[in-house]
Amino acid sequence: MQFASRLDNVETSAIRELFKLLGKPGIISFAGGFPDSAMFDVEGLKEASQKALAEEPGGALQYGATEGYEPLRSQLSSFMKTKGVDVDPSGLIVTTGSQQALDLLGKTMISPGDKVIVEGPTFLATIQCFRLYGAQLISAPVDANGVKTDELEKLIAEHKPKLVYLIPTFGNPSGATLSLERRKKVLELAVKYQTLIVEDDPYGDLYFGKAPPPSIMALSKDVPGSRELLAHCGSLSKVLSPGLRIGWMIAPPDLLAKATMCKQFSDAHTSTFSQATAAQYLKSGRMPATLAHVREVYGQRAQAMGAALKRELGDAVSFTQPNGGLFFWARLTGANGKLADANELAKRAIEKLVAFVPGAPFFAEKPDVATLRLSFATADVAKIEEGVKRLGQAL
Amino acid sequence: MQFASRLDNVETSAIRELFKLLGKPGIISFAGGFPDSAMFDVEGLKEASQKALAEEPGGALQYGATEGYEPLRSQLSSFMKTKGVDVDPSGLIVTTGSQQALDLLGKTMISPGDKVIVEGPTFLATIQCFRLYGAQLISAPVDANGVKTDELEKLIAEHKPKLVYLIPTFGNPSGATLSLERRKKVLELAVKYQTLIVEDDPYGDLYFGKAPPPSIMALSKDVPGSRELLAHCGSLSKVLSPGLRIGWMIAPPDLLAKATMCKQFSDAHTSTFSQATAAQYLKSGRMPATLAHVREVYGQRAQAMGAALKRELGDAVSFTQPNGGLFFWARLTGANGKLADANELAKRAIEKLVAFVPGAPFFAEKPDVATLRLSFATADVAKIEEGVKRLGQAL
Repeated sequence: MQFASRLDNVETSAIRELFKLLGKPGIISFAGGFPDSAMFDVEGLKEASQKALAEEPGGALQYGATEGYEPLRSQLSSFMKTKGVDVDPSGLIVTTGSQQALDLLGKTMISPGDKVIVEGPTFLATIQCFRLYGAQLISAPVDANGVKTDELEKLIAEHKPKLVYLIPTFGNPSGATLSLERRKKVLELAVKYQTLIVEDDPYGDLYFGKAPPPSIMALSKDVPGSRELLAHCGSLSKVLSPGLRIGWMIAPPDLLAKATMCKQFSDAHTSTFSQATAAQYLKSGRMPATLAHVREVYGQRAQAMGAALKRELGDAVSFTQPNGGLFFWARLTGANGKLADANELAKRAIEKLVAFVPGAPFFAEKPDVATLRLSFATADVAKIEEGVKRLGQAL
Repeated sequence: MQFASRLDNVETSAIRELFKLLGKPGIISFAGGFPDSAMFDVEGLKEASQKALAEEPGGALQYGATEGYEPLRSQLSSFMKTKGVDVDPSGLIVTTGSQQALDLLGKTMISPGDKVIVEGPTFLATIQCFRLYGAQLISAPVDANGVKTDELEKLIAEHKPKLVYLIPTFGNPSGATLSLERRKKVLELAVKYQTLIVEDDPYGDLYFGKAPPPSIMALSKDVPGSRELLAHCGSLSKVLSPGLRIGWMIAPPDLLAKATMCKQFSDAHTSTFSQATAAQYLKSGRMPATLAHVREVYGQRAQAMGAALKRELGDAVSFTQPNGGLFFWARLTGANGKLADANELAKRAIEKLVAFVPGAPFFAEKPDVATLRLSFATADVAKIEEGVKRLGQAL
């Protein structure tokens, strides 16, 4: 069978091979990118789904508008307002997870050969998603304060990209958060170069101490002309439940209209059953308590992992303690002749019954093989300490 | 903003403009393509969703495998067995509605410029979906027994298409069902020309009298080598609930693997909450009664519409009485100087407070402006009779 030529741009992920090994009995996994099932508000979601079916069974079970179920769009508009973003319900569309927002951006915006700037490192599924639409990806370097805006400006000027894709808050995999000054700079670059900026924000609500800077979308009101060059992707996956597949995208009206047309032929609409359940959940007022709970638990785990990494791996590894999200991004220093290749360490770690993801595949260009990503989300504090101890032994 | 070049291949649907008028008070609509909400087994779905959350909340709310939720794949495998198709759970993937199966087929198979043969007329969203991937569509003519296989063979020989897309059972919009002999012929053509055949089958379970011929997929066991050239798309939307967005695709392993990779970057996976609910529903054993119920009610409505069309429009319209599905496909004959342009009739009909969809947009090539599609699914018998009377007046 001869497949479409666009598939030539994508290789099967090296990470998938690793994931096959995760079923080994007794393994402690820091490899996943998902939240802890034990944290789901099952009771609240049960009530919400029952209410959805009782109050408007037709709406919850029938075909729905491609743009999204109106009561959910309203709730999401209010939710965004609590985060400083003024958006009408009609200014956002509901997507099947924020993964679909990326897919719709690719379908709507990217012609084969178009250049797209991403962070180096960035979300793996974004790399593959955009490459399937023929994008040529350019990597902009990242430090502990997010993407380096000076370098970003040079790359924008040189490559005139179709769009710039950023995860500015608790980035995956970098864990980094873009500073307030750099956020403003990004908005200025959007206007100066008339370049579309995509802000992917699945982790922004998952902060442990004080809140991160406002989203780029929230800050756009201070930079005239920038809002028209900005798309913002949100998600309930990390804070409520990934299984609902509820994401959303805020974007300028013309882009939103084209994305809606593309969505019509992608999946017609997102599950109205999931949408009605999410709408009832947001309406129930349980979200603030749910957020407080996940922030507390993940915060403890992040602290435990940071302390254990220092204790067990010492100067063989460097990292910045994340203030939110799900991930540590670390770099093997090679100090004292220790291993500096994360692929090799991943293999040894599996033998010691601990797993993580090597960082190289997260780079669209120039992979740094010394990097690795560790999720602290799904193991409790005791498991985190034991797992990092094994990691130290593997090293 | 400069959008991707692939959007140039798709125009905003003329039908969308029509749908905006459907909100008029007092209108009777035969325009929709959806089932009747009043027929949904709300009680059964409520129980199923509760059971899903009670028995395996993690599974129902967490990220899931891109291929689908295992218990649902098992249930769908059993469901297909009752319809004569032998397929392992691993031989199918769950899709976000069967619309996504079409999207994944496009993404996986169609390079810009590739030729694809569809029926004339065919499902509107298939035309647009494939065109977004750059397909050049060729129309194969259809009569009351489905696609004319002699003509189809000529077109395959001439155009060497990437795939042939058929809705062989109660086609949308044609209402036609491919005869048993033609089904076998299609399988022989697949093998003779080594051409992929896509069988889209959302309506096959919705028959009113005796069951239609077995699906092309079910018949493939009699034609050696044909199964490897066959994809089959199924859906719970028309018989259970569209809002769940549960479809599935059976295909050869290599195609299924590539489609799964594409799905990973389209929406990661279909809502596990919807999937777990559907799995529990199928397990509950309520499906046969649900099917019996929808068959009976839609059967009565189809009969009422056929009788009313004869009574009210007489020889001004020709049609074949459908034995299943949701649609009448009719043609204005122009007899006795009556109108023969369905677009014009649609405008007059709206003034008389009845709506239907003109047939022309359903043709990828050479539209027949005398055709129209009437859905009998959502109006009861009294409304159908009144609506067709208005249609007669409009004519």
